Amino acid sequence: MLRPRSGYNQWVGREEYLIDPSVPTYEFTDMFGNLCQRLVAPAGDFSIKTSVLVKADDMSDTAPGAFFMEVQNLPCETLPFLLPSRYCESEHFTHLAAELTSETAPGYDQCAAIVNYIRNTIKYHPGIDTGIISATKVNQKSEAVCRDMAHLGIALCRALSIPARMVVGYLETLNPMDMHAWFEAYVGGRWYTFDPTQDNLLGGRIAIAYGRDAADVAIYTQFGDPVELTKMEVSVQRMTSS
Amino acid sequence: MLRPRSGYNQWVGREEYLIDPSVPTYEFTDMFGNLCQRLVAPAGDFSIKTSVLVKADDMSDTAPGAFFMEVQNLPCETLPFLLPSRYCESEHFTHLAAELTSETAPGYDQCAAIVNYIRNTIKYHPGIDTGIISATKVNQKSEAVCRDMAHLGIALCRALSIPARMVVGYLETLNPMDMHAWFEAYVGGRWYTFDPTQDNLLGGRIAIAYGRDAADVAIYTQFGDPVELTKMEVSVQRMTSS
Amino acid sequence: MLRPRSGYNQWVGREEYLIDPSVPTYEFTDMFGNLCQRLVAPAGDFSIKTSVLVKADDMSDTAPGAFFMEVQNLPCETLPFLLPSRYCESEHFTHLAAELTSETAPGYDQCAAIVNYIRNTIKYHPGIDTGIISATKVNQKSEAVCRDMAHLGIALCRALSIPARMVVGYLETLNPMDMHAWFEAYVGGRWYTFDPTQDNLLGGRIAIAYGRDAADVAIYTQFGDPVELTKMEVSVQRMTSS
Amino acid sequence: MLRPRSGYNQWVGREEYLIDPSVPTYEFTDMFGNLCQRLVAPAGDFSIKTSVLVKADDMSDTAPGAFFMEVQNLPCETLPFLLPSRYCESEHFTHLAAELTSETAPGYDQCAAIVNYIRNTIKYHPGIDTGIISATKVNQKSEAVCRDMAHLGIALCRALSIPARMVVGYLETLNPMDMHAWFEAYVGGRWYTFDPTQDNLLGGRIAIAYGRDAADVAIYTQFGDPVELTKMEVSVQRMTSS
Repeated sequence: MLRPRSGYNQWVGREEYLIDPSVPTYEFTDMFGNLCQRLVAPAGDFSIKTSVLVKADDMSDTAPGAFFMEVQNLPCETLPFLLPSRYCESEHFTHLAAELTSETAPGYDQCAAIVNYIRNTIKYHPGIDTGIISATKVNQKSEAVCRDMAHLGIALCRALSIPARMVVGYLETLNPMDMHAWFEAYVGGRWYTFDPTQDNLLGGRIAIAYGRDAADVAIYTQFGDPVELTKMEVSVQRMTSS
Repeated sequence: MLRPRSGYNQWVGREEYLIDPSVPTYEFTDMFGNLCQRLVAPAGDFSIKTSVLVKADDMSDTAPGAFFMEVQNLPCETLPFLLPSRYCESEHFTHLAAELTSETAPGYDQCAAIVNYIRNTIKYHPGIDTGIISATKVNQKSEAVCRDMAHLGIALCRALSIPARMVVGYLETLNPMDMHAWFEAYVGGRWYTFDPTQDNLLGGRIAIAYGRDAADVAIYTQFGDPVELTKMEVSVQRMTSS
Repeated sequence: MLRPRSGYNQWVGREEYLIDPSVPTYEFTDMFGNLCQRLVAPAGDFSIKTSVLVKADDMSDTAPGAFFMEVQNLPCETLPFLLPSRYCESEHFTHLAAELTSETAPGYDQCAAIVNYIRNTIKYHPGIDTGIISATKVNQKSEAVCRDMAHLGIALCRALSIPARMVVGYLETLNPMDMHAWFEAYVGGRWYTFDPTQDNLLGGRIAIAYGRDAADVAIYTQFGDPVELTKMEVSVQRMTSS
Repeated sequence: MLRPRSGYNQWVGREEYLIDPSVPTYEFTDMFGNLCQRLVAPAGDFSIKTSVLVKADDMSDTAPGAFFMEVQNLPCETLPFLLPSRYCESEHFTHLAAELTSETAPGYDQCAAIVNYIRNTIKYHPGIDTGIISATKVNQKSEAVCRDMAHLGIALCRALSIPARMVVGYLETLNPMDMHAWFEAYVGGRWYTFDPTQDNLLGGRIAIAYGRDAADVAIYTQFGDPVELTKMEVSVQRMTSS
């Protein structure tokens, strides 16, 4: 899952996907609209190199005060993102979510309060990934990676009946550079970006894939004999706009 | 989610869905193809009565020996059912699944071995539902409800790279009668029915909804003020075929 | 194509579909969201009887003055209904459509002017169907059936860049009773009902199927040896609302 | 509609889509699975430049003798391609199609006979496009462009109950080079390529879009003030395979 699509606030102007050695590759669209590629990797060295030129906003939209949407008014396509999922056991977060937002206006501000809570209690530490864990366990940690922090944010939003979904993609200003994960919440009639790992939403984001949680949007899902990942490099450069 | 659709091996000949008091109801199709109905229930007594006349097989198909499909040959639409989900943390069952099927031919027979394991270690006890739990916890119990046993079966199949999905519906011979849950596994090029709660697959089944696990196929998902369920009755009668 | 779905302004409360002699029937959803049934009819007498209880409005919405939507603002799902189709060669109606609406505010009122033109120049004559013809030929006639009049309306709307689609269904007040066809046009941000065969939009309508024109929404499409239609009866009754 | 997708027998390795001056562009997928781009072109000079690197076969598959599929066995997704459409009034070709294939085995060979008929009676003359016409009119001509010849082939196949669809794309060996159109017919359980303009199926083809006929797969559909097309250049180069 490495091929961004043109969509809201991003336009794919150029894209490349090189497989070496070249093998037959089949592309399909999953339930969430993500482009997925399937292939049988040969034994031996194998590499995938992708690059993409995307027109994106300098900063993600923010909307303090944007209203909470009553469940009956939510579009049908947002409903799957209200349900608990593998790494976002939202049904366990009812009390915490209520507590964190007891003084907060329903909607965007609740999501912002959740993000503040995560930022204040968990340190973003990109180097310490010890395997994928679910939101209840993330909540017991003092340090976490982007994926974990997104899971916690998603579980807390859903506990307030706010649809929330995982996004995997690129962030231009990420340091150190890597693939990145954040989440979006549906308030005020649209999806808004939230990122507990960053102080603000500056820096162009490129979404590659959307899902309920990391189980849906793994960069790759591998079956069969174990694969040794020998190198993974990610770089993002700002181009002068035409 | 109470409206069965015509599909493989079932044909809906007559169907009724009565809401009392009558309120505006909106119907949509979810990501799995299930028909869902949305409504705002008024305060006070509220009832939904559905009935359906379905032409179904007397016995679900079985296929001992049906082959295991290599992941690269699986149809794309089965792939979501290989991933871990909220109540089927399949990544924790790799060892157990391998152990249970060490002597078994890959494919249908592995699923049958999994079902045997569940039947032998967990007693089906329809009355003891103490809330929804996930497969790792089901595996520590000695008694369980149909939903729990299905979750365990699904998690074990997925751990063998066999797509498995939850089914909610009716079983004519269920005793005591109630809504029922079982699972299907994709082997030999199609979905087959498995039901750890029953000794065999006799008795017509009617599928209402399919999903990754119980989170996707709840009969109802309720938001807002708590609702008291005062009565739920399910009855299934065999009609003489025309 | 005989199975109405719950949707905007209609809720299917009870539905029946009886096939005699009973044969395996497969149901699927076409590109327009219509439920379709496929079956191989046996030699000899064969009948299909359907009935449906639907909650519908007493009168279709009207919206004089509703605005014309610029093409760039139309939802993507309306765009197929802007293109010429088999029986609605809209590209031939540019001049006539402009002429008919030269004094009319863009949007709903243009559609109403088109309907008036059809009513004034072509007499609705349900008994004279001489086979399906396209809009250019309809426009040369002085009498026509509902399907033909809808085709002409659709072609004229599309010639003004207003999305228009065919609807097949039931109309409670139709006289003589039969299956019926009308059209919908997309103005003011939603689909509105137009029916050149009726003086007004009183009388509950039940939509069975939507499409570009009659080619998409035939009640049945038959292949193989010729079938003799020996009887077709349609009846609609108003029920007291619960 | 200028963005090919990876699919059966083609893999998009690199792709570029440049708009000058740059304007917001929205991408969506139509009913046939084609990627479509929407934009509001500014007044003045405006250009779109696309390029794509695709891995494709040197020659399209052929399958003399491939069987005719009875309508009841056709996959549901092929059924729309059996119906008459704007430029392929297949219902008018029943007699001609039967006559052309009276000595021919049902299936692939019927399609081949249809292609032979078109080749023998109509000269491919790329320069003479006088506006889009439908298959009945094409059949009266002695010279035609690729699109017209495809329409005639599609109408004749459908008249034999063989699903047939329009393809727009590139053909490496086309002379003079331009966008190209051909058709596919569904026989022997899959889609096969047919091209009445070429003596054989040598030369890599890249499919950009599929549809019922040219109405569905126009390279661009333009609304609003007339646009003057000042230049259109197409070039295809064979790359050495990696």
